[in-house]
Amino acid sequence: VSAGERIMLQPEVCARRAVCPNARGMKIEGISHRSLWLAEDGRSVHVFDQTRLPWKLETLRLAGAEQVAHAIRTAQIRGAALVGVAAAYGIALALRDDATDPALDAAAALLLDARPGLACLHRSIRRMSAALRDLPIATRVAAAYAEAAAMAEEDVAANAAIGRHGRALLDTIAARHGAVNVLTHGHAGWTASVDWGTALAPVYMAHDAGLDVHVWVSETRPRGLGAALTAWELGQHGVPHTVIADGASGQVIQRGAVDIVLVGAERISRLGDLTNTIGTYPVALAARDNGVPFWAAVATAAVDGTAEAPACPVEERPSTEVTTMTGRALDGSVATVRVVASGSRAANPAHDVTPSRLITGLITDRGVCPASEAAIARLFPGQHAA
Amino acid sequence: VSAGERIMLQPEVCARRAVCPNARGMKIEGISHRSLWLAEDGRSVHVFDQTRLPWKLETLRLAGAEQVAHAIRTAQIRGAALVGVAAAYGIALALRDDATDPALDAAAALLLDARPGLACLHRSIRRMSAALRDLPIATRVAAAYAEAAAMAEEDVAANAAIGRHGRALLDTIAARHGAVNVLTHGHAGWTASVDWGTALAPVYMAHDAGLDVHVWVSETRPRGLGAALTAWELGQHGVPHTVIADGASGQVIQRGAVDIVLVGAERISRLGDLTNTIGTYPVALAARDNGVPFWAAVATAAVDGTAEAPACPVEERPSTEVTTMTGRALDGSVATVRVVASGSRAANPAHDVTPSRLITGLITDRGVCPASEAAIARLFPGQHAA
Repeated sequence: VSAGERIMLQPEVCARRAVCPNARGMKIEGISHRSLWLAEDGRSVHVFDQTRLPWKLETLRLAGAEQVAHAIRTAQIRGAALVGVAAAYGIALALRDDATDPALDAAAALLLDARPGLACLHRSIRRMSAALRDLPIATRVAAAYAEAAAMAEEDVAANAAIGRHGRALLDTIAARHGAVNVLTHGHAGWTASVDWGTALAPVYMAHDAGLDVHVWVSETRPRGLGAALTAWELGQHGVPHTVIADGASGQVIQRGAVDIVLVGAERISRLGDLTNTIGTYPVALAARDNGVPFWAAVATAAVDGTAEAPACPVEERPSTEVTTMTGRALDGSVATVRVVASGSRAANPAHDVTPSRLITGLITDRGVCPASEAAIARLFPGQHAA
Repeated sequence: VSAGERIMLQPEVCARRAVCPNARGMKIEGISHRSLWLAEDGRSVHVFDQTRLPWKLETLRLAGAEQVAHAIRTAQIRGAALVGVAAAYGIALALRDDATDPALDAAAALLLDARPGLACLHRSIRRMSAALRDLPIATRVAAAYAEAAAMAEEDVAANAAIGRHGRALLDTIAARHGAVNVLTHGHAGWTASVDWGTALAPVYMAHDAGLDVHVWVSETRPRGLGAALTAWELGQHGVPHTVIADGASGQVIQRGAVDIVLVGAERISRLGDLTNTIGTYPVALAARDNGVPFWAAVATAAVDGTAEAPACPVEERPSTEVTTMTGRALDGSVATVRVVASGSRAANPAHDVTPSRLITGLITDRGVCPASEAAIARLFPGQHAA
């Protein structure tokens, strides 16, 4: 069986530090969490099944590389940072059985194959391979867990830094307007990372500091990541927000209801072009057309300073994500309905590319910078040379 | 009871000319239809319940002004032309009971109140009042039915003319490329009018003439008009098409897969600004950013040459249209699921305004023209002076 074991871990249980050793995480029902943590057995990892959120809070135990791959393929876990860290643990789990080079290669191929269109997955596997390949076989398992844990901690630290830098932008707006209206597209919150999130980190920090922040959340079809996950996260944390259809973001921006657009980043190219959740590009066009600042929140790990073109193919996701929609039925059950006329086919590109000319700037863990080749090279010299 | 009587009129029955005296209409299961027709009693009108389409083909009998108002309010009937014609019949039905001025005023108020944000509704009521007010009371009922029937015939003729003028644009593209890829947003097909539709009329005519036409259909949340109605219409008529999420239209245009964007029009202002289904504006921005022509198909009735600003308020539709989605469940039943996290609120503006600068041109029943004040005044001198 390649699917992760579904375990009913209640928030109360999860909050016990032995299980979920994390007092800093974002809140669910008032209790702080991370979105991935090592299980009590010290081997497998726990994640939330994001295909059930926000309708059910279910925890999966991923005990092998195949289960990690399955969770990535079916989008039970998603978001650049979380997928990257989970894949790293997937390598560690595989090496427990066999730590030889062929086994390492096989695990890397298995995990990459789960969603070959995700730049974050390529980065994570490349990093793990580079860290482990030259080590003696006997030390590889421990090194793999250490590297995966380091990636998780780096993500949390990077996102916290993004939150601080981004909050300064929101403070500036609030100083002028008294309140801040953010629009976000996609889901770049804490459950898309290990903690804090990227685009939402500044929002959480501003809200926690008492700023009057309101977020327009575009629902982000086809998977409804905004309506389901962003709205759920914001609601659980107590941040005022309003969900709109994806097509409505242009009108909301046009009528002056948005002070700043904040989105995440699957990848930033050497030239400053942004690969992100499908639908980001039209939001950037609307922001530009109305003089509203458009910022992408991006951890160093997502800066792909080595190449102009994306390093991985454009991902075409299953068309059933477009033809159906899942939600909570009147009787409380989670149900899927077909929303496209019978017999009609659908296409489902996962990402679009927003050209750097439409981006006001990048909020990174190293500070803010323009989305230009020169600025990216200056702020990320290592990434650029890599 | 203000809801229309739900009658199970099978397409086969409907095709009998006595019931549905229309051999020219668009096809459902191979049989030609109009979307509104006078019932056998010669008084009430038949329409399809569009909230059930494409899952169920159900016909409503609207036997009074209240039933017409209910059908408009609940979007059982929708689309500028269809709502306008239905409202005209609503006036006629009301006058059967009482044809005095106060009764005429009351019926007008009742119908306008159904969706006060629809310009088409204001136009229709204004026209009916103007046509009837000066007539003797005894002749008003017959005159009202005649005026409503005239509006229906004018709509069919106007849309057929739009189809011919628009088809010439598609022919030109096909002559260059061999095939034509259209992208449409919203639902401007025959079930949004009495016949042919506006934006889809050129597509149907090109397809019927043997052109290789393919249509990208954006699903058009919140009501999913594209996924449900546009896709259903195109499928029934045999036109190849692919449904995409609203956010994907930018990417599809960006990657060169679209030759021309065709949309309908709730209203064209004196200056050439386009009020249309929410989400039209971002599509226009993407078309402009990639040099793809963006055309609005508009019947004379939707040209509001008298005023710069919209004559009616921006319509805010019920938020439940955003928080829920209706479709066909696995067991075949039509079910509604909540797709927004519990407790999150939603906003639902029905329309946006696409500035004339983003519009390549208008396809009207009087020919094509730029979306400029001068061109509109030239082509629609009566509308301009009205």
